[in-house]
Amino acid sequence: MKQALKIVNCGIQAAASVVGRVEKNGPIGGVFDLHGEDDRFGQRTWEKAEAEMQRLALNTALAKGKLREGDLEAIFAGDLLNQCVGAAYGLKDFSVPYLGLYGACSTAAEGLLIASLLVSNGAFVRAAAVASSHNCTAERQYRSPLEYGAQRAPTAQWTVTGAGAFVVGPSAASDVLVRAVLPGTVIEKGVRDAANMGAAMAPAAADTLLRFFRESNTVPGDFDLIVTGDLGYEGGDILCDLMAIDGVPIRDVYNDCGMMIYNRDTQDTHAGGSGCGCSAAVLASYLLPKLKSGELRRVLFLGTGAMMSPQIIQQGECIPAVAHLLCLSAKEEKEWKLC
Amino acid sequence: MKQALKIVNCGIQAAASVVGRVEKNGPIGGVFDLHGEDDRFGQRTWEKAEAEMQRLALNTALAKGKLREGDLEAIFAGDLLNQCVGAAYGLKDFSVPYLGLYGACSTAAEGLLIASLLVSNGAFVRAAAVASSHNCTAERQYRSPLEYGAQRAPTAQWTVTGAGAFVVGPSAASDVLVRAVLPGTVIEKGVRDAANMGAAMAPAAADTLLRFFRESNTVPGDFDLIVTGDLGYEGGDILCDLMAIDGVPIRDVYNDCGMMIYNRDTQDTHAGGSGCGCSAAVLASYLLPKLKSGELRRVLFLGTGAMMSPQIIQQGECIPAVAHLLCLSAKEEKEWKLC
Repeated sequence: MKQALKIVNCGIQAAASVVGRVEKNGPIGGVFDLHGEDDRFGQRTWEKAEAEMQRLALNTALAKGKLREGDLEAIFAGDLLNQCVGAAYGLKDFSVPYLGLYGACSTAAEGLLIASLLVSNGAFVRAAAVASSHNCTAERQYRSPLEYGAQRAPTAQWTVTGAGAFVVGPSAASDVLVRAVLPGTVIEKGVRDAANMGAAMAPAAADTLLRFFRESNTVPGDFDLIVTGDLGYEGGDILCDLMAIDGVPIRDVYNDCGMMIYNRDTQDTHAGGSGCGCSAAVLASYLLPKLKSGELRRVLFLGTGAMMSPQIIQQGECIPAVAHLLCLSAKEEKEWKLC
Repeated sequence: MKQALKIVNCGIQAAASVVGRVEKNGPIGGVFDLHGEDDRFGQRTWEKAEAEMQRLALNTALAKGKLREGDLEAIFAGDLLNQCVGAAYGLKDFSVPYLGLYGACSTAAEGLLIASLLVSNGAFVRAAAVASSHNCTAERQYRSPLEYGAQRAPTAQWTVTGAGAFVVGPSAASDVLVRAVLPGTVIEKGVRDAANMGAAMAPAAADTLLRFFRESNTVPGDFDLIVTGDLGYEGGDILCDLMAIDGVPIRDVYNDCGMMIYNRDTQDTHAGGSGCGCSAAVLASYLLPKLKSGELRRVLFLGTGAMMSPQIIQQGECIPAVAHLLCLSAKEEKEWKLC
């Protein structure tokens, strides 16, 4: 396989997040831009609520960046719903070219990665990436309707009700720089348990991360933080084990957005948060501000996605996964050269 | 809105198609690379059959282009199935970065568009775009299982069992050039009839096409063919009417992949073909060879997609659509300048 790592020169010019009640009540609840008390966002159905979160997130990101929709040349967006209706309906009133993605929970990273490659190479001046998930839409689509009160396995994660929107633009206009991207390949290691997405995704994260260190000639110690999107406690632990087995231990600098967003002891969310909205909201409102302030200086962000289809699981297949990587840095690190 | 048209400099280096029995028996059935007699492609389920078509299409495209998977820097792929499992499972054994798309039936054009922008701007040397649909998977997911024998409306289209794969690469290595791309915006004009996708998509095609002529300073007469992906007879007629109303008549040079693939009189396919596989297979094996031979010299290809979700239709919403445009030319036209 050719070198997958791509050095880029662009930044995240603006970002915003919208979350639900459980996320607002979590340990980092204070950082999110908008939240809803009843998770409905004024809509009649959960699907429309999720779409509304995407609209609110992008509008808020534009406002925070003092930008208008006319400043965007494209929107890369998706979510977990069948036909990605959260994105299609939530963003349909923006008069901006729309390119739909399906990367499962890796969607925020996938959108940021494609937007970064296009902005960095001069195809676009500015493009947005938007992703969302909603506990009430995802649980009924992928597992069972919440009203059934099905018992949840210890390895099960809690789908985040949240959305994140990002504007990728020129480095000079951005406080956080995108320094490199590495798109992941599809990895499937035999996991077929729909209540253990972390185990399905961890090998994909390890594959992408190992390739990054190999191709960039960096080591985990070069980074303040290596953060995955939603492996949760179970998947995160597996990832750290897999990396240690390969001689690249990361545990000292590792964390996961799904571990950050809920309080494990008090919120009954089992193995942590998951969903496109998990990594999107945590990156937009918790990690990027720390990169802006310089509290974090070099971060590897991996969006992790399990392409889990209830129908195909019933047909006896395993769950393929993918992990896309972004190497981010604070502006003060602009002299730092990878490779 | 900023200019959406992007001039690019790359080509389609290789392409291949796989179709089912009905398509093989259609008026252009002889052009497709591979076909299956029972539409199962050796698989136990229709979903796995669709995934197998994607694998076969990409393998065949690579073989036709004398390329190996290591020559690809990314695959952009998708289909109509929930969680895009046709692409995820069909392509999981390629050790190539995988970027999943959801553009409904516009997926082939969306993948070609993103790949063209990235290759043209130097991010990748070569990237693939793959898309598929299967009559038996799509009809039961979007409408009703075929076994029910539900009566079909005259405006209903027949989902194509087919897949197309494309390798976008340097102009010098390609017989067909991609000259410009124009990504579409989401357009929704109040259509909520799941048996009339053509009507839902035609306004999106008109929007993209009108913007193209405005931004490129070209007229329909500059092209040998303006071809949409799957508007069918109903949507194609609406598009021609919409364009005429706007003072840009296209009927003399217009056609639609969904009108080409079946015999309207003998194949009982009502308003024509539809699905990601319709435009992908027709472009790969019918249109590109004509551009290669010079029989066609300048072609506008519009992938048309309706983001139709049965669930959201039941919630009372209309169907949003999108159309992405590629401006293609024969190699002999390389001196021709747009804009």
